Amino acid sequence: MSAPGENLRINADRLWDSLMEMAKIGPGVAGGNNRQTLTDADGEGRALFQRWCEAAGCSMGLDSMGNMFARREGSDPEALPVYVGSHLDTQPTGGKYDGVLGVLAGLEILRSLNDLDIKTRHPIVVTNWTNEEGTRYAPAMLASGVFAGVHAEDWAKARLDAEGKSFGDELKRIGWEGDEPVGARKMQAFFELHIEQGPILEAEGKDVGIVTHGQGLSWTEVTITGKDSHTGSTPMPMRRNAGLGMARVLELVDQIALSHAPDAVGAVGHIDVYPNSRNVIPGKVVFTVDFRSPDLSVIEDMEARLKTGAAGICDEMGLGISFEKVGGFDPVAFDPACVGALRNAAERLGYAHRDIISGAGHDACWINRVAPTAMVMCPCVDGLSHNEAEEISKDWAMAGADVLLHAVVETAGIVE
Amino acid sequence: MSAPGENLRINADRLWDSLMEMAKIGPGVAGGNNRQTLTDADGEGRALFQRWCEAAGCSMGLDSMGNMFARREGSDPEALPVYVGSHLDTQPTGGKYDGVLGVLAGLEILRSLNDLDIKTRHPIVVTNWTNEEGTRYAPAMLASGVFAGVHAEDWAKARLDAEGKSFGDELKRIGWEGDEPVGARKMQAFFELHIEQGPILEAEGKDVGIVTHGQGLSWTEVTITGKDSHTGSTPMPMRRNAGLGMARVLELVDQIALSHAPDAVGAVGHIDVYPNSRNVIPGKVVFTVDFRSPDLSVIEDMEARLKTGAAGICDEMGLGISFEKVGGFDPVAFDPACVGALRNAAERLGYAHRDIISGAGHDACWINRVAPTAMVMCPCVDGLSHNEAEEISKDWAMAGADVLLHAVVETAGIVE
Repeated sequence: MSAPGENLRINADRLWDSLMEMAKIGPGVAGGNNRQTLTDADGEGRALFQRWCEAAGCSMGLDSMGNMFARREGSDPEALPVYVGSHLDTQPTGGKYDGVLGVLAGLEILRSLNDLDIKTRHPIVVTNWTNEEGTRYAPAMLASGVFAGVHAEDWAKARLDAEGKSFGDELKRIGWEGDEPVGARKMQAFFELHIEQGPILEAEGKDVGIVTHGQGLSWTEVTITGKDSHTGSTPMPMRRNAGLGMARVLELVDQIALSHAPDAVGAVGHIDVYPNSRNVIPGKVVFTVDFRSPDLSVIEDMEARLKTGAAGICDEMGLGISFEKVGGFDPVAFDPACVGALRNAAERLGYAHRDIISGAGHDACWINRVAPTAMVMCPCVDGLSHNEAEEISKDWAMAGADVLLHAVVETAGIVE
Repeated sequence: MSAPGENLRINADRLWDSLMEMAKIGPGVAGGNNRQTLTDADGEGRALFQRWCEAAGCSMGLDSMGNMFARREGSDPEALPVYVGSHLDTQPTGGKYDGVLGVLAGLEILRSLNDLDIKTRHPIVVTNWTNEEGTRYAPAMLASGVFAGVHAEDWAKARLDAEGKSFGDELKRIGWEGDEPVGARKMQAFFELHIEQGPILEAEGKDVGIVTHGQGLSWTEVTITGKDSHTGSTPMPMRRNAGLGMARVLELVDQIALSHAPDAVGAVGHIDVYPNSRNVIPGKVVFTVDFRSPDLSVIEDMEARLKTGAAGICDEMGLGISFEKVGGFDPVAFDPACVGALRNAAERLGYAHRDIISGAGHDACWINRVAPTAMVMCPCVDGLSHNEAEEISKDWAMAGADVLLHAVVETAGIVE
């Protein structure tokens, strides 16, 4: 005898059609999307999502940060809703799936339950979090951060874009500021489906990744100072070459991260060389070290070894060095019960799966602070994201949404 | 019994006063000079130099590239002139001595000979070469290069500045285009005094450096290609980090140069990282390797080892690499007799001296192709040049000019 709902599946064609329909709003220049937060295109995307939700029989809640909550009622008026969702905003040259898949898969869950006339004990709420991307208004995950009490709402609304327009004014302008206080909602659980934005699942042939942790992050800006001098007339022993010092610190960063294999990572993506002239030995180099790990003590160890090791390198070379921490957040451990629900769902459905650690930030990382939370990921081609060429297959979208459906339904409880 | 002219010395105060007087023309913003080639200030500097030369009894020749030749007659109408000089043009934020010292020390030689009513067998000609700096019109040493047959005059005159004004038009505009064909003059020898633009002489407490060679140069632009990917979600073993590949090649460049100690040098001054974002592993890095040596076979060895070694590094890391030679010139060996005349002069005068290799290009490097040539250098504070803070002492200027005087007089021959 099968468990209730065991044979449930989402409708992959309908989910895909909705993804393609949403992608028509705020098209990019190269096949992807430019539907940045609080633009007219964002407003248009929100309106389409609301029409779809209403057609699926939902009521729509809206809080004062513009977060949208489409609710399908449950049978028990006392039961807290099970939340599911992600974000509809995109990068300026973003893809069609980053965030959008998580919102529209939530909608697809409701549509599939409607198809089969299945009732759940807990209500199910599909959420669109405002400004996850953080490109127009830094930082990323702004509105879920306010919801979780990480940021003050006044501060968030005063954030300015590059043209000096505030978040608050733009939210009003597009007509999506609600009356509901932010963060007032209590959740039974929150589930987020997202594309991996990395290469692991595709490389290993997995259908889904069960996200157990979100990596913590540490950004250290390093400034190495040497002496500008002529590349021709300065003898090798008299050089104080900040560029060569930087090269040695890059090697150190790699060694430190590899010493905490397999979960820790470390790299330098940003390097500015001064004066950056072919015939001048660099007198100054500024670069940012990015360390990540799901374990806070590992991050602290990597930071400490960077400082000691890089200072030693520079000391030996007659170079100056200084460090400034310019970003960071602590690792996230998702709720074991929610993680288990997702893992069980993948197992039950026969999808190839593995546990995975999220390397990027997501709304779920903040919501985890105020509700039991977990995430499921589906592969994306070549790990590519934040790029108009971002691509997934319909099968991958289906696998992720099926797992999400089963975990949500298990948590919300089917009414026999 | 002393040799003829053994007690000759230049007048250091007069030389210094002339340097300070010339520095008033085209003043910089920070105590140095902005007297770029073919500007009104350059014209004014030329006019002052001409007045000084005429006051010293010279006739002034002017060729069609604007090169100036102030001639003090010798006693033998058949004897080729001994040339001495450098350049009066400066960098946009240049110093008061780079080039100027070599021209005004030449003038001071003539003035000192006049003081003592000394006649030479060979005429002595003090030269101001047009556009040594190459900042306004690339390349550097443009007019001495035309004189030596390295560049065609038409090509040189068609060179454009950043505003689209041609060298030829600007030379006419400031009124310093002569009728004399470029390169027609035959020289007994050419001597150039220049500040070192490096730190060696000051560090070793030497009064002068006898320049035996000019370093050859090789510029190779290296492009390493990896794959842009997220610093958080890309596991260490799946990264193709072009920045880390660049770091390893920088270390290789240092090792290669050190293996040819003490004369060879190698460094990377210019690095561009793409996309240069804190959370993206660099997918591409472009940088320029600068190798120099007074020995052509060493330069060729360094180039070959860079290509082999860097290709090996990138191959192991799954990175692509390409090389483009973007600049170079062959080493220069100055004329042994001229070098010997300078070294003997320093010895005779009791100045602390050492042989030195010029790391930068100079007009003498081109003139060496068409006449017996050598250079003498004096220290500059902290090796600083191409900077308004460039500084030398009056004693250093005196030492360099005294050595120049003795070598020129020895070559020109005193008429008893």
